[in-house]
Amino acid sequence: MSHYDKLTSHYQTLSHFNHAQAMLGWDAAANMPSGGSEARSNAMAELSVHIHRLSTQPQLEDWFGNAEQEAFNTEQIATEQQASLREMKRQWQQATVVPEDLVQAQSIAGSKCEHAWRSQRQENDWTGFEKNWKEVVALSREEAKIRGAALGLTPYDAMLDKYEPGTTTASLNTLFTDVKTWLPELIETVLEKQKSESIILPSGTFSTATQKALGLEVMKLLKFDFDRGRLDQSVHPFCGGVPTDVRITTRYDEQDFVQALMGIVHETGHARYEQGLPTAFAGLPVGEARSMGIHESQSLFFEMQIGRSKAFISHLSRLSADAFSAHNDPVFAQDNLYKIYTQVEKGFIRVDADELTYPAHVIMRYEIERDLINGVIEHTDVPALWDEKMKAALGISTKDNVKNGCMQDIHWTDGAFGYFPSYTLGAMYAAQYKATMTQNIDFDSVIQSGDLSPIFQWLSDNIWSQASLHTTDELVKRATGETLNAAHFRKHLEGRYL
Amino acid sequence: MSHYDKLTSHYQTLSHFNHAQAMLGWDAAANMPSGGSEARSNAMAELSVHIHRLSTQPQLEDWFGNAEQEAFNTEQIATEQQASLREMKRQWQQATVVPEDLVQAQSIAGSKCEHAWRSQRQENDWTGFEKNWKEVVALSREEAKIRGAALGLTPYDAMLDKYEPGTTTASLNTLFTDVKTWLPELIETVLEKQKSESIILPSGTFSTATQKALGLEVMKLLKFDFDRGRLDQSVHPFCGGVPTDVRITTRYDEQDFVQALMGIVHETGHARYEQGLPTAFAGLPVGEARSMGIHESQSLFFEMQIGRSKAFISHLSRLSADAFSAHNDPVFAQDNLYKIYTQVEKGFIRVDADELTYPAHVIMRYEIERDLINGVIEHTDVPALWDEKMKAALGISTKDNVKNGCMQDIHWTDGAFGYFPSYTLGAMYAAQYKATMTQNIDFDSVIQSGDLSPIFQWLSDNIWSQASLHTTDELVKRATGETLNAAHFRKHLEGRYL
Repeated sequence: MSHYDKLTSHYQTLSHFNHAQAMLGWDAAANMPSGGSEARSNAMAELSVHIHRLSTQPQLEDWFGNAEQEAFNTEQIATEQQASLREMKRQWQQATVVPEDLVQAQSIAGSKCEHAWRSQRQENDWTGFEKNWKEVVALSREEAKIRGAALGLTPYDAMLDKYEPGTTTASLNTLFTDVKTWLPELIETVLEKQKSESIILPSGTFSTATQKALGLEVMKLLKFDFDRGRLDQSVHPFCGGVPTDVRITTRYDEQDFVQALMGIVHETGHARYEQGLPTAFAGLPVGEARSMGIHESQSLFFEMQIGRSKAFISHLSRLSADAFSAHNDPVFAQDNLYKIYTQVEKGFIRVDADELTYPAHVIMRYEIERDLINGVIEHTDVPALWDEKMKAALGISTKDNVKNGCMQDIHWTDGAFGYFPSYTLGAMYAAQYKATMTQNIDFDSVIQSGDLSPIFQWLSDNIWSQASLHTTDELVKRATGETLNAAHFRKHLEGRYL
Repeated sequence: MSHYDKLTSHYQTLSHFNHAQAMLGWDAAANMPSGGSEARSNAMAELSVHIHRLSTQPQLEDWFGNAEQEAFNTEQIATEQQASLREMKRQWQQATVVPEDLVQAQSIAGSKCEHAWRSQRQENDWTGFEKNWKEVVALSREEAKIRGAALGLTPYDAMLDKYEPGTTTASLNTLFTDVKTWLPELIETVLEKQKSESIILPSGTFSTATQKALGLEVMKLLKFDFDRGRLDQSVHPFCGGVPTDVRITTRYDEQDFVQALMGIVHETGHARYEQGLPTAFAGLPVGEARSMGIHESQSLFFEMQIGRSKAFISHLSRLSADAFSAHNDPVFAQDNLYKIYTQVEKGFIRVDADELTYPAHVIMRYEIERDLINGVIEHTDVPALWDEKMKAALGISTKDNVKNGCMQDIHWTDGAFGYFPSYTLGAMYAAQYKATMTQNIDFDSVIQSGDLSPIFQWLSDNIWSQASLHTTDELVKRATGETLNAAHFRKHLEGRYL
């Protein structure tokens, strides 16, 4: 057996334990009663230890060395095998580069900080939070330095690499600096324009059962493969499971159906990416989704490019009026639903933000975490910086309001630095795909027709089936003819909101 | 760390992988879409391999030897530790005694036989089945010989030991010979008595949602702990999960609610045993259920002793009439429901059999598999023997009808010999508990009152909390003052049916 084959077999074994971990995680969120949590945590921790052990087995270093030699000696080695080897090695390096005692220290500090944060946030308690967070930041900086040294990157670029391989501070600075030149003014203009619009908001009871039935109808329209996936409920919506059995979740508010419905559209985008990954590489790193940002590009393509188009909202209007037997209710009129789904508002909370203000939230987080990890600022500087950037971006202050400021998100509490940019990268990629797609596809007519296959075929050909065969830049260039270009995003936002 | 502590830690690690396996198995039956099955099978097979590897690690032999020495040297070693050591060693011996190549050969032959049986049974194809089954029987005989040699038991007793440690052919022969002296006549008498009774059978639509709501009400009455468990649906009802998160399932027939309802009562009995196991030994073999038969004694205590009592059926009458808004429908009258749930009928199929004829099915299977594994008969003798025994027990013939004869059950297709007696042992234990319990508890009044706590307290004190601290005989003797005595079972059946 060649070392390449040994590695392939090893990573397939790993994927079986990852399958178990994914399903236990989904079950914990979607099914598990409260009493089950201790035994589940123990089981999942044991699996993590085992997965880590398999991921860092000492013989892997030799196997990679020998496999690269084999590749070098074989003229005929397929491009796909080279990509597979590259991605296995990437995962191996990610797993081995950080010493185990640091990983453990981070896990303990992160759990402690996150746990305390749950009540500290309610109490607006920066002083209490800061004491725990100090350690989390210090350990993340240490991790970033170690990763940076191994990869030849700056500390923050090394953290970005975990979620967005190939993305750098330099490229993000360029993209986001551009956005900052036009976004604040665009927001003001749109707010002014929307002032005169009247919207009828849903109210009254929308039963969970009916909302779910409606969600399933919309998933059918989006060609979710129900032989290979399910829709369930959880407190925080997510897309989990494995490519042949994708588990998406949503949460229902019986006072208002619009959020759950669009949430389902979003998660269906994630799901179709997973369902569309190539079976030839099942269980191998090269067969996995390219990155967080590319994953988000699919959910946001579904949510923003398809879901919030007028054509799609005409389907939502019809299907929801049918579901709630409310054909004469003006809430469900296409125009009204479109206004609801494109209403812009300045707010403190990122997860509640609309399409237009969302990038402002992401960019300020990016700037803060970049400087924090690179040691340019200290963790105690964050609340004031947050306030300052929030005022510049959206004109609202978070002074003495950390619970709606820098303490609002869970990500930083356990050291997930480098993750936020993916959201806006995803939105930008989605706009760029749409711009390319419309050169050959009559986008709105296709959606209007109710058979969205041509759109999905494009995504399948260009994104889903490509998995991690190419770098992100290559993937996007092959799909759209250029690497990421924020101009498409601007054009999309201006086209929709002006 | 003592070797006893090392073993404890090792078995707790194992329990975490068993947790994963249990939940994946439940999910596969209750949730998984068809497309997920290949990846799930691979993941579960990988987990099985890993669990087997951990269960048979070479150092365990030394650890057990040293731990026994430690126990010998320590006067103060707790009885509970001795029991824990005994049960860990029992599981280790079970896992190591059969050579891996035999396990693998059995797995392949069993899968092949079971797979083909699914269509062969429909086609009444003994000739086809016999070709595959020959190998399964041969390998099971080999397994039985190896186990028997290691344990100093006859081959069939060694197979019994897998499910019912301590139970022997000698004890079963005594119990079942006794039953055979009175059961056939009792069945005839009861059938004659019931001839004149009129029963109104349910018909019409009983929606799955309402049946589930009714099932949940009944589970509440039975004090199922919903913080540590759930009710779901699957094709074959079962009780799965882990003690702090017990997953029971049922299947609903919209034409008739009575089977699903009593099925829920049965599975709730299994569940409460699991939920009542002592947390002090969580994750350790000594903290697990004592045996298949004792497990079945709980489900059958719930189903037969509680569930089919007139007092409990008065609750079922009220709750089901409420659920289906059918207070004037004579189907739901207490007397009628009682007649439905105690109707006796001779039939070919064990899983459809009533309380009274069920033991006849089990005893004939026992006699056949005992002689088959001990080499007294050959696998080709089974259809004729089946026909002969069926005629003796219930007066019906299965000649040229193997699909309703020896090919009706899945158990033998993949070599689960030694398992059938547990069902009737469970029914006998349950009758014996009831006989003891009624010395101090006014059984029917307690049920009638709607607060069944005194009954559950007895089960908790005597069975659930005792887990595997004692041998089965000790457990039953401590609970009832004597080892298993079929007289209680006879008295129960005569009391109910005569």
